[in-house]
Amino acid sequence: MKLATIRSVCCSVRVRASRSGSRFSGMSRGCLPVGTTNSRLTLRTASTVTSSGTSPTLTANFGKQLKEDDWSECNRLVGEVVQNTKEAIATLQRRNPDIQPLLVILQAGENGNMLEINKKIAGKIGLNVTQICLAKKCSEDEIIEELLKLNDDPKVHGVFLHLPTSSLTSRVLNALKPEKDVDCISNLNIGRLVRGDMSKGFVPPIASAVLDLLGKHDASLKGKSVLLVGEQGPLRLALQCLIERSGMTVQTNHWNSKSLKTQVMQADAVFLLNVGNMDIPPSWARPETVIIHCESASEPDDNLIDLPSTSGLAYLTAAYRAQNVTHGCCRWLQEQQYRPWDLYSHKLQPLNPVPTDIEISRAQTPKPVAQLAKEIGLLPEELEAYGRNKAKVQLSLLDRLHSQPDGKYVLVAGITPTPFGEGKTTVTVGLVQALFAHLKLNSFACLRQPSQGPTFGIKGGAAGGGYAQVIPMEEFNLHLTGDIHAITAANNLLAAAIDARMLHEATQSNKRLGINKTDPASLTPEEISSFVRLDLDPSQITWQRVVDTNDRLLRKITVGQASTEKGQIRETGFDIAVASEIMAILALADSLKDMKNRLARMVVGSSRSGEPVTAEDLGVSGALAVLMKDAIKPTLMQTLEGTPVFVHAGPFANIAHGSSSVLADKLALKLVGRDGYVVTEAGFGADIGMEKFFNIKCRASGLRPNVMVLVATVRALKMHGGGPNVSPGAPLPKEYIDENLSLVAGGCHSNLKKQIQNAHLFGVPVVVALNVFKTDTQAEIDLVCQLAKECGAFDAVPCRHWSQGGRGALELAMAVKEAAGRPTNFQFLYNTEMPILEKIRTIAQKVYGAEDIDLSPEASSKIDYYNQQGYGSLPICMAKTHLSLSHMPDKKGAPTGFVLPIRDVRASIGAGFIFPLVGTMSTMPGLPTRPCFYDIDLDPETEEITGLF
Amino acid sequence: MKLATIRSVCCSVRVRASRSGSRFSGMSRGCLPVGTTNSRLTLRTASTVTSSGTSPTLTANFGKQLKEDDWSECNRLVGEVVQNTKEAIATLQRRNPDIQPLLVILQAGENGNMLEINKKIAGKIGLNVTQICLAKKCSEDEIIEELLKLNDDPKVHGVFLHLPTSSLTSRVLNALKPEKDVDCISNLNIGRLVRGDMSKGFVPPIASAVLDLLGKHDASLKGKSVLLVGEQGPLRLALQCLIERSGMTVQTNHWNSKSLKTQVMQADAVFLLNVGNMDIPPSWARPETVIIHCESASEPDDNLIDLPSTSGLAYLTAAYRAQNVTHGCCRWLQEQQYRPWDLYSHKLQPLNPVPTDIEISRAQTPKPVAQLAKEIGLLPEELEAYGRNKAKVQLSLLDRLHSQPDGKYVLVAGITPTPFGEGKTTVTVGLVQALFAHLKLNSFACLRQPSQGPTFGIKGGAAGGGYAQVIPMEEFNLHLTGDIHAITAANNLLAAAIDARMLHEATQSNKRLGINKTDPASLTPEEISSFVRLDLDPSQITWQRVVDTNDRLLRKITVGQASTEKGQIRETGFDIAVASEIMAILALADSLKDMKNRLARMVVGSSRSGEPVTAEDLGVSGALAVLMKDAIKPTLMQTLEGTPVFVHAGPFANIAHGSSSVLADKLALKLVGRDGYVVTEAGFGADIGMEKFFNIKCRASGLRPNVMVLVATVRALKMHGGGPNVSPGAPLPKEYIDENLSLVAGGCHSNLKKQIQNAHLFGVPVVVALNVFKTDTQAEIDLVCQLAKECGAFDAVPCRHWSQGGRGALELAMAVKEAAGRPTNFQFLYNTEMPILEKIRTIAQKVYGAEDIDLSPEASSKIDYYNQQGYGSLPICMAKTHLSLSHMPDKKGAPTGFVLPIRDVRASIGAGFIFPLVGTMSTMPGLPTRPCFYDIDLDPETEEITGLF
Repeated sequence: MKLATIRSVCCSVRVRASRSGSRFSGMSRGCLPVGTTNSRLTLRTASTVTSSGTSPTLTANFGKQLKEDDWSECNRLVGEVVQNTKEAIATLQRRNPDIQPLLVILQAGENGNMLEINKKIAGKIGLNVTQICLAKKCSEDEIIEELLKLNDDPKVHGVFLHLPTSSLTSRVLNALKPEKDVDCISNLNIGRLVRGDMSKGFVPPIASAVLDLLGKHDASLKGKSVLLVGEQGPLRLALQCLIERSGMTVQTNHWNSKSLKTQVMQADAVFLLNVGNMDIPPSWARPETVIIHCESASEPDDNLIDLPSTSGLAYLTAAYRAQNVTHGCCRWLQEQQYRPWDLYSHKLQPLNPVPTDIEISRAQTPKPVAQLAKEIGLLPEELEAYGRNKAKVQLSLLDRLHSQPDGKYVLVAGITPTPFGEGKTTVTVGLVQALFAHLKLNSFACLRQPSQGPTFGIKGGAAGGGYAQVIPMEEFNLHLTGDIHAITAANNLLAAAIDARMLHEATQSNKRLGINKTDPASLTPEEISSFVRLDLDPSQITWQRVVDTNDRLLRKITVGQASTEKGQIRETGFDIAVASEIMAILALADSLKDMKNRLARMVVGSSRSGEPVTAEDLGVSGALAVLMKDAIKPTLMQTLEGTPVFVHAGPFANIAHGSSSVLADKLALKLVGRDGYVVTEAGFGADIGMEKFFNIKCRASGLRPNVMVLVATVRALKMHGGGPNVSPGAPLPKEYIDENLSLVAGGCHSNLKKQIQNAHLFGVPVVVALNVFKTDTQAEIDLVCQLAKECGAFDAVPCRHWSQGGRGALELAMAVKEAAGRPTNFQFLYNTEMPILEKIRTIAQKVYGAEDIDLSPEASSKIDYYNQQGYGSLPICMAKTHLSLSHMPDKKGAPTGFVLPIRDVRASIGAGFIFPLVGTMSTMPGLPTRPCFYDIDLDPETEEITGLF
Repeated sequence: MKLATIRSVCCSVRVRASRSGSRFSGMSRGCLPVGTTNSRLTLRTASTVTSSGTSPTLTANFGKQLKEDDWSECNRLVGEVVQNTKEAIATLQRRNPDIQPLLVILQAGENGNMLEINKKIAGKIGLNVTQICLAKKCSEDEIIEELLKLNDDPKVHGVFLHLPTSSLTSRVLNALKPEKDVDCISNLNIGRLVRGDMSKGFVPPIASAVLDLLGKHDASLKGKSVLLVGEQGPLRLALQCLIERSGMTVQTNHWNSKSLKTQVMQADAVFLLNVGNMDIPPSWARPETVIIHCESASEPDDNLIDLPSTSGLAYLTAAYRAQNVTHGCCRWLQEQQYRPWDLYSHKLQPLNPVPTDIEISRAQTPKPVAQLAKEIGLLPEELEAYGRNKAKVQLSLLDRLHSQPDGKYVLVAGITPTPFGEGKTTVTVGLVQALFAHLKLNSFACLRQPSQGPTFGIKGGAAGGGYAQVIPMEEFNLHLTGDIHAITAANNLLAAAIDARMLHEATQSNKRLGINKTDPASLTPEEISSFVRLDLDPSQITWQRVVDTNDRLLRKITVGQASTEKGQIRETGFDIAVASEIMAILALADSLKDMKNRLARMVVGSSRSGEPVTAEDLGVSGALAVLMKDAIKPTLMQTLEGTPVFVHAGPFANIAHGSSSVLADKLALKLVGRDGYVVTEAGFGADIGMEKFFNIKCRASGLRPNVMVLVATVRALKMHGGGPNVSPGAPLPKEYIDENLSLVAGGCHSNLKKQIQNAHLFGVPVVVALNVFKTDTQAEIDLVCQLAKECGAFDAVPCRHWSQGGRGALELAMAVKEAAGRPTNFQFLYNTEMPILEKIRTIAQKVYGAEDIDLSPEASSKIDYYNQQGYGSLPICMAKTHLSLSHMPDKKGAPTGFVLPIRDVRASIGAGFIFPLVGTMSTMPGLPTRPCFYDIDLDPETEEITGLF
């Protein structure tokens, strides 16, 4: 609602409409016509210097013994402050060329002399000034509306309220942000001043000016005695505090006191506050005593004096105000810099036996996310809270901290797991809890957002477990901040666009489609963009719909059977939402722009002539980006011990790359600082999760890992050492309950060893984390640690975070710290310019231990097609079982001599990888006979959830 | 992490683990063993009364002339404060029987004498005390962690920090919420004290005690002179301010001042602050002068004196602390009460021509939602922000304000619309803008959340338009706070549960299902709850899946075609998400419990034996409630003029009842207060939207409308008066552009008149709002207003909110205010105990003007079935076209003599209505040839959205 902007030199005047809607007119040179609301500046003697603060008018009277050079002295001081402030601005602009300190004057009615002085001083200093002129009789609401806007405006570093005293209500004075309250008028800043808590807050400019004048008047202030006479109020208290702090002694008294005369005679300076026309009898004061009158003007009035005669305190006050604005600007800049963490950790007192996950989660009150964010150096404006416990973090953080060095980057991967999983997430959470809460090293966990399908199906939640959890676990496991819902919406809008397009192209004339030309070359760009026939081949549509529910009946369906669809029937299917290519894009994008470009590039099928058709061709990529614009911001949560966690993205680990987002890692690496740690995990075993993390995610992000933590369990090692099969639902065979060192050794020498070697292919040191179960014996634990080191691990330690929290992962934290201190030697496994076939073969042979690969004819022709289309240099994302290093889930340990069959090859062009299918991959889980949801309930009185795990 | 709680009388002691994990032991009577961290309380003379504040130890020495009765005087004062505070607690407990003021003492190490005194006084008063004992050497972090918990705990009304001085850092002192800072130690409270801004903040108890003692010592304080001697600090400044405010004069001086002697001789009282063992020479003081020593103890030390001898200031200070706690508790209670709004409105300066909706929306900066919430009297803990511009509001508000009378309840409905719609939402928004911003009457709009389907399809957004909008419009139109996503998730989990159940029952043995008995009667409750055969009839499943996308190809599909589904193929379909019964439930539920019960009652189909099967039978209703637990909270947004809006629920207006939620209306009616207005709208024309609003929604909520606003346009009236057909895409015939009074009159005498009469059936007064378009002539406008009044409208006014904002709806606001002032005479159209058939006939004849109804055999048998199942007394939700009062969309005006065909009858048992189908209803819109999404784009640099409308 900006009406007019007039700039002169460095001052700009903005004029707001008065309440009645009228406007000021006749403005020139940034100065409004002389009116009726200006401060009165009275001359007491020829030598009186005058000024007026927000409300008080101060008249300094240098007694009878006024020195002739007081005038020039004052001018000299003004010059000094101006010069210092000018230099301060120059210094900060050298480091921040875009910054421009700005003082806003909020005034009622027209310009006065006082404002001219402020603008003149600002002009000398090179400080920008904006004037906002409200109507003379503006309401409290109007003032506050302006103040709230100024509070929110990062370009404003200080606000000077030049308003009638009647408008300066407590509500108005306290509406201004203390950071911009350069006149120290808010309760909070007054309190800071009184307590001397001056790391924040400001010294009132008028107090600085008076003090300066006093100080310069007599070189040594120490031990001098100042008498403050008159009415109590914030200004007197401020002066009293400041004078005492500068080494003088203060006496205060009231005008009618009997002891006044004695005190005046002993004082080196006397301040008369609001005593009106009264004055100290000349006989009372010693010759050298300085006498200064300070008066609160009840209302700015309309007399003006010539500018030249008002030099002195008014100028000095204005100069100090400008200095405060500059100071405020520096502080603001300081806040923009990286700040060391001020994080406190929640203490854990683990119970034995360990309660259920939801009981543990509920027993710990998370700190408000706004507080957590503040503790780790986020600015309030970078946070978008979603309730009390979760918040999205804005990507602008990356710009703000671009010069901040990254912390250490730690990947948690696992050996080939049993169907139960071996606890990568608990290790990740336990490790960050140990790093911060017990080693005081900044640490951030970056986790994947789980699908709601398994939460209500068979797997339960994914927030970690026991005393290594993200809390509140129900918020982690349910809607979170809606990212998966956004993916579902975007994915399905694209699907609807595809089918609607095919329907319209099949059933409508060219005319209806908006095309009335026959020669395609004659179409204008507008006509092309408005509608062209894509001629999609229904049998070649690869884009599926998604739901975030385990809904197996949707795996294969026929759509278009209603009569309204005029026979446009075709077979298709639904995947679980996290299998959407849009999820993989979210995980790999490194900016909003990159995400938008990737969304546009997504190939949804091909035309009847064999050309790939993209989301951009369908005209929907802008809408997809709109739907995904909030999802791209990672969500901040916390561990049980109060350390920060980013939850962001969660692509499938088979048809996609299975790790959380590049952006979450990048933000976290900046936030932890050079000596901090970011711990993230890769899905499945290291042969899949780690390999893709390095070859796909690190390639996309440019980030380089410092350490890999390899999670193992005695249970899984026994399985790899030749133990009997284990499966969910069936009782665990006794080999897994009783001590069995030979099975453990077998597992270490096969799968564990191979996975360690796999990490070494990339030049990354490995710390083995043995996730200890209560059935593990000490001999088994010792054996694993010993053999892991023999197999090349940098270190191997037992972890008990599940039952003990961070304290249980302390050894691991120390080992990781040690390993991360070593120089790294990271390398990719393959060059993307290698032929697709060679890239697949390299992974199969080097990582899986295959003899060779065997391509089906379909796979072979797909590779040819992708090469033709120019997709040949994309990295490879193998879709293979995670239950074996080979393609055969029942081959445990480290199989060799097998030939890896490549059934088919597909591509996610937007995400940017080719994914060969080794066997069949289910992209839609089912519900078991007795799904989790049976036990999940909500108490409508307490709103507590039960049955989540 | 509570370790032990020992209660004695009214005091409870909580002991926190020390940092090393050790615990205190040997506690008894709420008192910890005498240890080494207690305050030293020294006796200066036999008559010295001692006390210690948080840090200062105060020793009062009543000079040489100490009166014998000072002791008893002090005791009398303690008794007075105790008695007053006791009475204050009794008074507040009479009005709030559940309230119990609570002081928390946060102490380091063991109990001391000082704490015993505080507990003793609290005991006398009936104030609860909780002690939190940290380890003697606790860290700043540990203290702050406790303080943050205390800040968040609504049961705590005051906190006393009894910690070593070294722990009382600025960070600690300012971590405590100012509302609970009963000792006035935070910067903010000190600032308030200094400025005398005492509506918030507290007087330090020690200052109150000293002042009281001074006051009682000499009945008249006025004019007395007090000398404060010694070190500056918050306590001295506080005393100085308070003493001056109570009418005395203060002089301050330092210990070494030459004028000290003179001042002492003139003083009526002398305070010696931190002067150590120094004392005023007896000769200096006048006989009646009171001399008081105040000392800051650097550390509480370990000497203890007998309790009886510490009576005096210590007790008085404790009593004032207790008074402050009680005061804090009263303020807290006050805050819980209804508060008048402190809302300020954003000024609009409408442009001409009116810019696009998104341009208008983007040009206005919304106020932060936390601020809006505060302005309308919401408590911070009732708000769950979703970013800066939206927040969910907790339902606990209804309990807090249960005794607050409701405001006026205004329904906006429309005449039978053209296919373009006539602007009900803009009228709703314009009306609240006018009511608040221009008439200063509290007003709240309650709107439906739009489906994302049409946003990307053909309709565009639904946030209103022009200068009557909800902002930011893109946040309104996109994910909002995820409610529709939650509905989708819940709806589809139920669908997956149905199909998975049928699959498992069809393909698994009873044993696998967990049933090994043959006699159903012998099943235990656990067995029944764990799994029973539901024997669902696949052909009778009525539950459909949903997506929030216009995806017409999903209208009719076949599912289960993958080989893994073993031939469990069946036909089904998807609806748009807002057509889900769960959406209707969200709109009608009046509590979490009610929603959960309704979800459980939803009928999804029937068994082969014809019994209805519910969500509860499938064991999924708890999980559905969990998914919907946040969705039940309405979302707060704002209009362009800064007035509040609830956005909540948006059920279809044909197969459901088409209005926003009961809960949003209830919350809003409490918030606006007795004289405020809640304006909400009903979908479609009044014959459908208003009829359902009254008969279904008002029946469910118990709320009674005061006024109906009937929206009309000259365009729609001309159509009803016999104008040619209008359809989207085709140019508007000239009858609609040029003046045509006879068509207008025809429309008024037919459709407008009938819709007014329809409102009168319910006893509700009608204000006709003519939504003025720029082609309307003054004669047309005047004619509509005149005829509407002739047809029975209470008033009829033109509205220009679209181009002018609230100012354009000012006349409407005044008319609504006038109408709402009349006594109401609301009645339902039918009694629900009437037979289903009669209820349908009543609506058809009285509201639509039908001759009779004609039931298909299918409809007839369904009615019989519903009667059998006990659903006969549910209200009726007609599924009829909105384009005519009849079932024939092309019959405009007010058709008569027709027979309304009832093709089929269905039921939403959870939502609680029977819905007869009049013709076919599409529950899945399609995308047009050129959908909106073509124009929707995101600028990745600015994050600005374009193309939304």
